Amino acid sequence: MYKEIEKGICAPEGFVCGSTYAGIKSKKNEKPDMAIVYSLRPSSCASLFTTNKFCAAPVLLDREINAKGKARALVINSGNANAATGQQGLSDAREMVSLTAKSLKLEEDEVMVCSTGVIGQYLPMEKIRNGIETISKDLSADYYDDAAWAIMTTDTVRKQCAYELQLSGGKVKIGAMGKGSGMIHPNMATMLVFITCDAKVEASLLQGMLKEAVDETFNMLTVDGDTSTNDSLIMLANGASNVEISSKEDLEALSSLIKHICLEMTKKIARDGEGASHSLIVKAQGLASLNDARLVARSIAGSTLFKCALFGKDANWGRIMAAAGYSGADIDPSRADCFLESEAGKIQVMKEGFGLAFDEEKAKEILSQEEIIVTVDFHSGEYKANAYGCDMTYDYVKINGDYRS
Amino acid sequence: MYKEIEKGICAPEGFVCGSTYAGIKSKKNEKPDMAIVYSLRPSSCASLFTTNKFCAAPVLLDREINAKGKARALVINSGNANAATGQQGLSDAREMVSLTAKSLKLEEDEVMVCSTGVIGQYLPMEKIRNGIETISKDLSADYYDDAAWAIMTTDTVRKQCAYELQLSGGKVKIGAMGKGSGMIHPNMATMLVFITCDAKVEASLLQGMLKEAVDETFNMLTVDGDTSTNDSLIMLANGASNVEISSKEDLEALSSLIKHICLEMTKKIARDGEGASHSLIVKAQGLASLNDARLVARSIAGSTLFKCALFGKDANWGRIMAAAGYSGADIDPSRADCFLESEAGKIQVMKEGFGLAFDEEKAKEILSQEEIIVTVDFHSGEYKANAYGCDMTYDYVKINGDYRS
Repeated sequence: MYKEIEKGICAPEGFVCGSTYAGIKSKKNEKPDMAIVYSLRPSSCASLFTTNKFCAAPVLLDREINAKGKARALVINSGNANAATGQQGLSDAREMVSLTAKSLKLEEDEVMVCSTGVIGQYLPMEKIRNGIETISKDLSADYYDDAAWAIMTTDTVRKQCAYELQLSGGKVKIGAMGKGSGMIHPNMATMLVFITCDAKVEASLLQGMLKEAVDETFNMLTVDGDTSTNDSLIMLANGASNVEISSKEDLEALSSLIKHICLEMTKKIARDGEGASHSLIVKAQGLASLNDARLVARSIAGSTLFKCALFGKDANWGRIMAAAGYSGADIDPSRADCFLESEAGKIQVMKEGFGLAFDEEKAKEILSQEEIIVTVDFHSGEYKANAYGCDMTYDYVKINGDYRS
Repeated sequence: MYKEIEKGICAPEGFVCGSTYAGIKSKKNEKPDMAIVYSLRPSSCASLFTTNKFCAAPVLLDREINAKGKARALVINSGNANAATGQQGLSDAREMVSLTAKSLKLEEDEVMVCSTGVIGQYLPMEKIRNGIETISKDLSADYYDDAAWAIMTTDTVRKQCAYELQLSGGKVKIGAMGKGSGMIHPNMATMLVFITCDAKVEASLLQGMLKEAVDETFNMLTVDGDTSTNDSLIMLANGASNVEISSKEDLEALSSLIKHICLEMTKKIARDGEGASHSLIVKAQGLASLNDARLVARSIAGSTLFKCALFGKDANWGRIMAAAGYSGADIDPSRADCFLESEAGKIQVMKEGFGLAFDEEKAKEILSQEEIIVTVDFHSGEYKANAYGCDMTYDYVKINGDYRS
């Protein structure tokens, strides 16, 4: 039993934040580019990071800090990913942690750091230093909107949500903010997502719940097939509600809400995919294993050709089935059904492996809506999985043709 | 020792071909859409086909015929892939084979069939029947140019080549034609490629040489990450030169020329990638295994983000290294060097895992050329591999946003 509330990452008790335009982004465009999130009391933490071997300096550092399970502050910059920056990058990331810890009177292993933006350039440390000083002087539970803005790169909208959950011992709150728009592909999506929570939860328990949620959400999200160097999902739980997880039911309720929040952020990122005009949910059903279902769903959501067809509102379902065919999953084409669906209705375009005559006008109407659902059913088992994505547009190419300038 | 000659697939002795506009493509655009290639004498054959589980009806049929190793005619249509067409599709493909065999007075297991174009529509068999009748009445060794045209879909140029090779017993000739532009990704590339040869070679020997060549060429080619339902590479060797492969040197010479021809066709397809303004060669070097080298090269050539940067002539090498990082290869980022190269020169953009200051103007000049070479060297072993691709442009999205209409 949970309900949506306001205030994003500051919805849970005992969290404040702040942000500023430090000048890291080359052009001032009204967006702040640095943020700090701070728990007023000690907090447990759990995190998941990119699997990219060229991972960024902050990811290397955060992995160490997360292992101790007790971070209570995050310092984040956008505009520069601090990736492929060698020893200098690591030392810059360490300085961000150390300055933030000093400003907030914390230990250095209580601060995590995230960067997002251009790869391969050193951080402008003088600007960063000033930024940390400015922000840490003015933190408040009212600044969540600006913080959600400060972490954006090519994102066009802020991505945040918050919920209140009734547990057996009382109410707890969870909030989240995230960014991600391009270089989005499992594992994980290219993104930064931060979740705050005022329940009392052990770090190890938190880590388990987070991992389970990510496998069904962010790891099923693809915008462009490129796995980023900086993907980070960090959750802090500070216990400020004084509510403990005291039963199996509580644990399940909390775990289920974390999943819900991850799914909501996943959909927000898919909807805001670079240049996207449609968001896409692919439902793969009737597979003989979970792995097969995930392979099929992700392969279809990631097909460049189908993404282009979606942009053109063209019901080219052959590309959907081709993508299922090369997914690596064990499938029987002769049992495949395929449906296209949106607010405008639902039509079946394939039955038992070959095409049905369908109303092209109706199909165009369905594909003209914002959110499109593709369902493929192989009638070969009980497993299913959803993947999330968007279409491929002129604007994606434009945005990424000249990102650095 | 080989030299380039004229006449494409009709360069080898004893091969003729023909083509016509049968009306399969919805709009008449001066291109023929059906072709037949015919060996005047019995011929051995070798073939490789798509790994896509939703493979097209002709692929299912050709696999059977290829197993016998003795095909001597090919009937090909463009405009309709005869894929995802169920039992009707299989029976249509069989009819194409049977009509062609009858017209040419061959056995049915001596004819192979290929289709390329839209997925999920039945072949217009009345048009196909007329097409086969028309073409088989007028076959000639002079019609190779039109045949190369007849197999094109979104291709903008004909793709063919031919060579003469000196073996110990005399001269042999090999010719090739191919098509492929979108839905191009290993294994194999989306494409049809046909190779003719007048050497006397056993089918099993031919199959081995072809497989080896494909692993280094077509399987290292990616235009858009989508593996097609129809990929077929078919080679016929009719022995019309009366030259046998009589030594290890002959075998190596022939094998090496087949590789060369596959590479040439690979590069032609990459250059003509849908909407492409640049062709791309990625050289991965210094890896600890061949598999790692291939993973790295293909991952970079396939990165949507880097392909967009290439379109924008933006030296965004961070995306190159990010793609290496998520390739799945066992790499050490801290040893990575990266170079950008073209006719306009060569610059190093990364050394030992982090970015070098480089002349942005020079980089832009290099990336303004037609063919771009990206080299990454991990200094961790002796293995290397090349991958082939192109950039991602507005035109790719446009071409694929409304392909079926």
